[in-house]
Amino acid sequence: MNNITMKIAEEAILNALREDITSEDITTNSVMREYKLGEVDLICKQDGVIAGLEVFKATFLLLDKETNVEFFSKDGDLVKKGQKLGVVRGDIRVLLSGERTALNYLQRMSGIATYTRAIADMLKGTKTKLLDTRKTTPNMRIFEKYAVKVGGGYNHRYNLSDGILLKDNHIGAAGSVRQAVLMAKEYAPFVRKIEIEVENLDMLKEALDAGADIVMLDNMSIDDMKEAVKLAAGRAETECSGNVTKENVAKLVEIGVDYISSGALTHSAPILDLSLKNLHAV
Amino acid sequence: MNNITMKIAEEAILNALREDITSEDITTNSVMREYKLGEVDLICKQDGVIAGLEVFKATFLLLDKETNVEFFSKDGDLVKKGQKLGVVRGDIRVLLSGERTALNYLQRMSGIATYTRAIADMLKGTKTKLLDTRKTTPNMRIFEKYAVKVGGGYNHRYNLSDGILLKDNHIGAAGSVRQAVLMAKEYAPFVRKIEIEVENLDMLKEALDAGADIVMLDNMSIDDMKEAVKLAAGRAETECSGNVTKENVAKLVEIGVDYISSGALTHSAPILDLSLKNLHAV
Amino acid sequence: MNNITMKIAEEAILNALREDITSEDITTNSVMREYKLGEVDLICKQDGVIAGLEVFKATFLLLDKETNVEFFSKDGDLVKKGQKLGVVRGDIRVLLSGERTALNYLQRMSGIATYTRAIADMLKGTKTKLLDTRKTTPNMRIFEKYAVKVGGGYNHRYNLSDGILLKDNHIGAAGSVRQAVLMAKEYAPFVRKIEIEVENLDMLKEALDAGADIVMLDNMSIDDMKEAVKLAAGRAETECSGNVTKENVAKLVEIGVDYISSGALTHSAPILDLSLKNLHAV
Amino acid sequence: MNNITMKIAEEAILNALREDITSEDITTNSVMREYKLGEVDLICKQDGVIAGLEVFKATFLLLDKETNVEFFSKDGDLVKKGQKLGVVRGDIRVLLSGERTALNYLQRMSGIATYTRAIADMLKGTKTKLLDTRKTTPNMRIFEKYAVKVGGGYNHRYNLSDGILLKDNHIGAAGSVRQAVLMAKEYAPFVRKIEIEVENLDMLKEALDAGADIVMLDNMSIDDMKEAVKLAAGRAETECSGNVTKENVAKLVEIGVDYISSGALTHSAPILDLSLKNLHAV
Amino acid sequence: MNNITMKIAEEAILNALREDITSEDITTNSVMREYKLGEVDLICKQDGVIAGLEVFKATFLLLDKETNVEFFSKDGDLVKKGQKLGVVRGDIRVLLSGERTALNYLQRMSGIATYTRAIADMLKGTKTKLLDTRKTTPNMRIFEKYAVKVGGGYNHRYNLSDGILLKDNHIGAAGSVRQAVLMAKEYAPFVRKIEIEVENLDMLKEALDAGADIVMLDNMSIDDMKEAVKLAAGRAETECSGNVTKENVAKLVEIGVDYISSGALTHSAPILDLSLKNLHAV
Amino acid sequence: MNNITMKIAEEAILNALREDITSEDITTNSVMREYKLGEVDLICKQDGVIAGLEVFKATFLLLDKETNVEFFSKDGDLVKKGQKLGVVRGDIRVLLSGERTALNYLQRMSGIATYTRAIADMLKGTKTKLLDTRKTTPNMRIFEKYAVKVGGGYNHRYNLSDGILLKDNHIGAAGSVRQAVLMAKEYAPFVRKIEIEVENLDMLKEALDAGADIVMLDNMSIDDMKEAVKLAAGRAETECSGNVTKENVAKLVEIGVDYISSGALTHSAPILDLSLKNLHAV
Repeated sequence: MNNITMKIAEEAILNALREDITSEDITTNSVMREYKLGEVDLICKQDGVIAGLEVFKATFLLLDKETNVEFFSKDGDLVKKGQKLGVVRGDIRVLLSGERTALNYLQRMSGIATYTRAIADMLKGTKTKLLDTRKTTPNMRIFEKYAVKVGGGYNHRYNLSDGILLKDNHIGAAGSVRQAVLMAKEYAPFVRKIEIEVENLDMLKEALDAGADIVMLDNMSIDDMKEAVKLAAGRAETECSGNVTKENVAKLVEIGVDYISSGALTHSAPILDLSLKNLHAV
Repeated sequence: MNNITMKIAEEAILNALREDITSEDITTNSVMREYKLGEVDLICKQDGVIAGLEVFKATFLLLDKETNVEFFSKDGDLVKKGQKLGVVRGDIRVLLSGERTALNYLQRMSGIATYTRAIADMLKGTKTKLLDTRKTTPNMRIFEKYAVKVGGGYNHRYNLSDGILLKDNHIGAAGSVRQAVLMAKEYAPFVRKIEIEVENLDMLKEALDAGADIVMLDNMSIDDMKEAVKLAAGRAETECSGNVTKENVAKLVEIGVDYISSGALTHSAPILDLSLKNLHAV
Repeated sequence: MNNITMKIAEEAILNALREDITSEDITTNSVMREYKLGEVDLICKQDGVIAGLEVFKATFLLLDKETNVEFFSKDGDLVKKGQKLGVVRGDIRVLLSGERTALNYLQRMSGIATYTRAIADMLKGTKTKLLDTRKTTPNMRIFEKYAVKVGGGYNHRYNLSDGILLKDNHIGAAGSVRQAVLMAKEYAPFVRKIEIEVENLDMLKEALDAGADIVMLDNMSIDDMKEAVKLAAGRAETECSGNVTKENVAKLVEIGVDYISSGALTHSAPILDLSLKNLHAV
Repeated sequence: MNNITMKIAEEAILNALREDITSEDITTNSVMREYKLGEVDLICKQDGVIAGLEVFKATFLLLDKETNVEFFSKDGDLVKKGQKLGVVRGDIRVLLSGERTALNYLQRMSGIATYTRAIADMLKGTKTKLLDTRKTTPNMRIFEKYAVKVGGGYNHRYNLSDGILLKDNHIGAAGSVRQAVLMAKEYAPFVRKIEIEVENLDMLKEALDAGADIVMLDNMSIDDMKEAVKLAAGRAETECSGNVTKENVAKLVEIGVDYISSGALTHSAPILDLSLKNLHAV
Repeated sequence: MNNITMKIAEEAILNALREDITSEDITTNSVMREYKLGEVDLICKQDGVIAGLEVFKATFLLLDKETNVEFFSKDGDLVKKGQKLGVVRGDIRVLLSGERTALNYLQRMSGIATYTRAIADMLKGTKTKLLDTRKTTPNMRIFEKYAVKVGGGYNHRYNLSDGILLKDNHIGAAGSVRQAVLMAKEYAPFVRKIEIEVENLDMLKEALDAGADIVMLDNMSIDDMKEAVKLAAGRAETECSGNVTKENVAKLVEIGVDYISSGALTHSAPILDLSLKNLHAV
Repeated sequence: MNNITMKIAEEAILNALREDITSEDITTNSVMREYKLGEVDLICKQDGVIAGLEVFKATFLLLDKETNVEFFSKDGDLVKKGQKLGVVRGDIRVLLSGERTALNYLQRMSGIATYTRAIADMLKGTKTKLLDTRKTTPNMRIFEKYAVKVGGGYNHRYNLSDGILLKDNHIGAAGSVRQAVLMAKEYAPFVRKIEIEVENLDMLKEALDAGADIVMLDNMSIDDMKEAVKLAAGRAETECSGNVTKENVAKLVEIGVDYISSGALTHSAPILDLSLKNLHAV
């Protein structure tokens, strides 16, 4: 996340700090009444992919801009259990009070990157790319979609305002596949691609003829999907959504769809365990 | 979450909607230019514990206060795959535009409740209670801590401002266990209990003598923990933190600690799969 | 602007009211100490296209949700000098205090719609569509882009996050047209079309070969643009930007570009004059 | 706008940046993955009066406080087509991502200053001063009222809370001109002047007798206005509002009113064309 | 405070509720799990002037818009110890959770009104009016200035942006009294009166000659002040600031100044004791 | 208030500045168009206890981070009339525009600290401690509770979410004292102590038996309170609330309660008079 995105994300990080500190850190303030310079190490407790280092850093800087954060890894690196990823140096009270919020971001983002990498690796060497969805944690999308990219995935639309995805209900409201595509072309900003969900080959053909840019193959048999991919070749990109497991990844790859999207990347990835260790005065 | 808590949480839900809708839902607006009354069912796609129904409801009401949401279950109910949990009725555009945000909350909260229930059930019949931690998703704590309670867990402190937990670094800064407890008693609001992390029986005794209310047993052997529980009996409550698995739950229960806390409840529970189905005009 | 977009826009309208009322409307409060029900007419003082009626209405409702606003026209209607467009009924103090803010929105939005319609009308019967730009008034984009659509224009990308537009500096940074397009395809969410600015036919060809979806013809001669349109046919859409006047509109149409974009729609349209008249108690 | 006003305005500028960047500048990020120092010139593309340089500068500094902005002109200067007004130096990504928002402010503010100067110049050498109104763009008032001053105009009241202006409806509610003035004197903070709109000489006399500080002459004939100015001399200031054109400016000046106010200064001034050119690495 | 001012003040009240409820009212939620309709009386525990009833009411309505609040008094009424001022009816949990915040507003505002009334009463029958200052509690000005008016005082300028008050430092910067007044006349919106602080009769004369609207007599002897009032008669209003006690009020009245201002009205008035009593289910 | 708490409080201070400056300080801007470096002294005008120096400092830094503030005292110091407490150096316009807001905080916080110290001193040498309440000024709690501590008082719960206090209505809803205590133990986070209000010795005994941690003695006779303190010894802490005067402080101390709480500390303490003097250019 570069400086500009970090600026946009700053308010969310500040809110997270306010969530954890209503008025003060009473434990720390009980025993540390004065400024004392200290240092603490960021340690990896599990193998995985690190993501969110700038967010981790910003959390401490928001509490106290004199804090110094140095990293020995960068987002996207494979990290190993026991590896020292960075050092935070500053007022010990800031190190203690910011620790949990900084780690809550870093652990979740790294968890998503790690989980994404595992699946993305299965797609290596194929033309099929892995996509995220809008099934993100509320108020965490900017962080979670970034983590997917760090993990080797690709982003689908960011939200309802910047992408078209016509589903069965939209098709129903429009009257037909063709009508839905045409209405979207007419209404939506012309820089948007039109994606539409189709359930069978007839719908697919109608969508292609109407000029859909992307077709999402929904609930179709393997054979139908293979046929669909052929029909769409050179006319539209193909996406396939759903539960991604080791077994069906192999099948989906074989079908040759351009994209497979998975909500689990963001909604069900466990965190990557990380911690701050060896706090000491300097 | 009663009305008052919902009022406090409202801004977060509104922010989540703004995250998903920068300006408009272009897909829906492409094909549905006018108000049309419709209805959609909330369906469970996995067995689990439901949590967050009021948040789900508030999401639609924030978009359009004329929306009507009716539930056939209540938070804490065991729900079954295929079960119809409720009906949302209102402007079809609102049903479509609010769907993802409403489900993102409900799925995550229900996932936490489901995961918590599974572990809490292992503690049934014992004196040991299951606690959450501050390892929550940033800006989701009010929702996630509630979900833990729905799942049968108990809440540890809400944040750094409303609970004392003296860890090794605090003890180091204070000079001794005794000194740390006394400083906290002097500094912190008198309505706070004093909790302190101890690593061996000597520290434990010193903490008890200094008047700690709760002792967290950290990295101690099973035998030491058993001894610690005996020593603390009638003088302080005991808590034990860490990786909770089927095996060690049995051991921890045997030890007789009052509380075991688990970060995984909030940081690594997968979601409970839910969806909106059968949208139709009425 | 439907209910959902209005909800997203509500905070901006509330800020505008706060801008005009720091503490109270001292003039009105001087002479009207008590609630009195009244009515006032919304009158058109100039011919044009009306846009923003829901924003006008929301302004009064935000001040007092008991206010009743009835319209005799709808967004997009041609309205005539002297025409009565609606009636606002409610506490006279609300009618007086909300008047300026409500009209400031409605006048500007209608001014944009009116100006847009004038140019869009020149394009009638041709394949060329009129686009807006990001040259909007700060914090007014959601209102101004909507007004362009009401006036018969089309929206270009909403902001920097939801559309790709590779300009000379981006091409320079990438190294070549081809490289810029490929990097954008790799980096940007796959639902985005890739638009690129080209200054001559060689760049155009390179862009088409690299798979650009839209080419913006920049500073090219009429003849080159005609050639460009031919070359792009069936491979990419063409856009042409710049000062739009009666004369060059004719020329641009002749060239056959798909889109012409104009910043003036939002940055230099004069307002449409409207007023509230005939306030009276009822 | 000095530092203090800039601090008050900062939130609005930040909101404008958030309006243009939901998550990231995907175009720039596609092709520029790393920090690169660059420089770009601020060039004038039209003759006019420059206004808003501090706002332009703040926009870049909010994105990245390491950006350096140097100006060769100051607010209020007459600037010429082709003139180089300043240089922005910093991370090229910041230069590209902040460009549009910074220019949207500067162009609009300069447009207002330019338009205001044109009219103010017609009043030079007379006692009549040019005033703005509350017909500003929503959420832009702090910027637009400042631009009017830069252009040589004067500010009328800032909003409903800091100035009294009794219009026909207020007079009606109070019962009489005299009663309205007295009620305002009693109710409003004593540091406020009382302004009242009068439609004929009888109302004027009543207003003067009641102690009005300023009288706005509304819909009166030239002769009546001349008489009014004589009657008010030494007792109250006179203001005249309405469409200001070259012809009537001459007439209004001849009448000798103290102030003429014009909504067009803020609601219908076209922008001054400015651009960032010659971006290059340094 | 009418509806419009209440709308402007609403965000502050909501922030106050968030200050008192981070997540939930744990006491109330412990013992009342379900909605129960109840009623509670607003009782006066001290004689005084009541002020802020609409704020009190809004506090409960913000928590739950179904709450019903009925009053038997109105702002400005003299109220007696033991008097029942109103009834709040609604969800008992709302009555309990909103009580403290609602009373904190009402008690402080009524305290200010009561204190103001006591001093204003001493000025009855004289031409001298009592003014407040900007010495208000941070983020409470809209409430406190209103309470002063309810108590029979008058408001001085609301803040730094809507009134001119030239003090010694401003005069020093300008170079002279005359220069300061002229610079303010040139710079400030023409609807502002110019007030200037003078320390002796020479400064006073200079201020009057320069056209000051209000002169604040600072640190002058009683005799000089009497002379000053004579000199200013018909040319400017006079204000006198400082510690107001029973004794000096008499003297100040004798001098015949138009206004005396007192910071104590808002910064040192003790609260008026009020409470909610007799909560019962209905 | 250390840096972390100051960060949390920053938004409130910024809001207070916005309350005092809608757009600009027109007086200062009238006479000082350019930056000029100056210095002003913070002078004490009354004996008392100083509190809030960091807030005072932050107010100026928020306006202009180049401002330099140096103190010769620290929070909690006894200060004397005429004493110079600090120096503020920076742009004279910042010194003038920030003065009132900075002093409004410092005066109120110091007033509370001074008032608290006076009462706390009466308790010196006894075991009884002085507590504040939630009767704070809305949106000022973080500042006022801190000031109480500076004055030698102790903080009761911060708000409704972080402390349990079962009052008569809660007991009524629960059914009995015992039931209320048990329900709170079950519901509330286990780190909370349970406090309950009792009106007689029977209730006290029931509360103690149920395991209450703190008992608040309400409306009990001196003799009953003495008996209560004996009964509670070693089982619960005792608190007594109400009007604290010199006389009853003596009595309360004699009773031997652990805590007495007083709302007056925050709701009725007059300010400590402070001012900025000797502004001069440097």
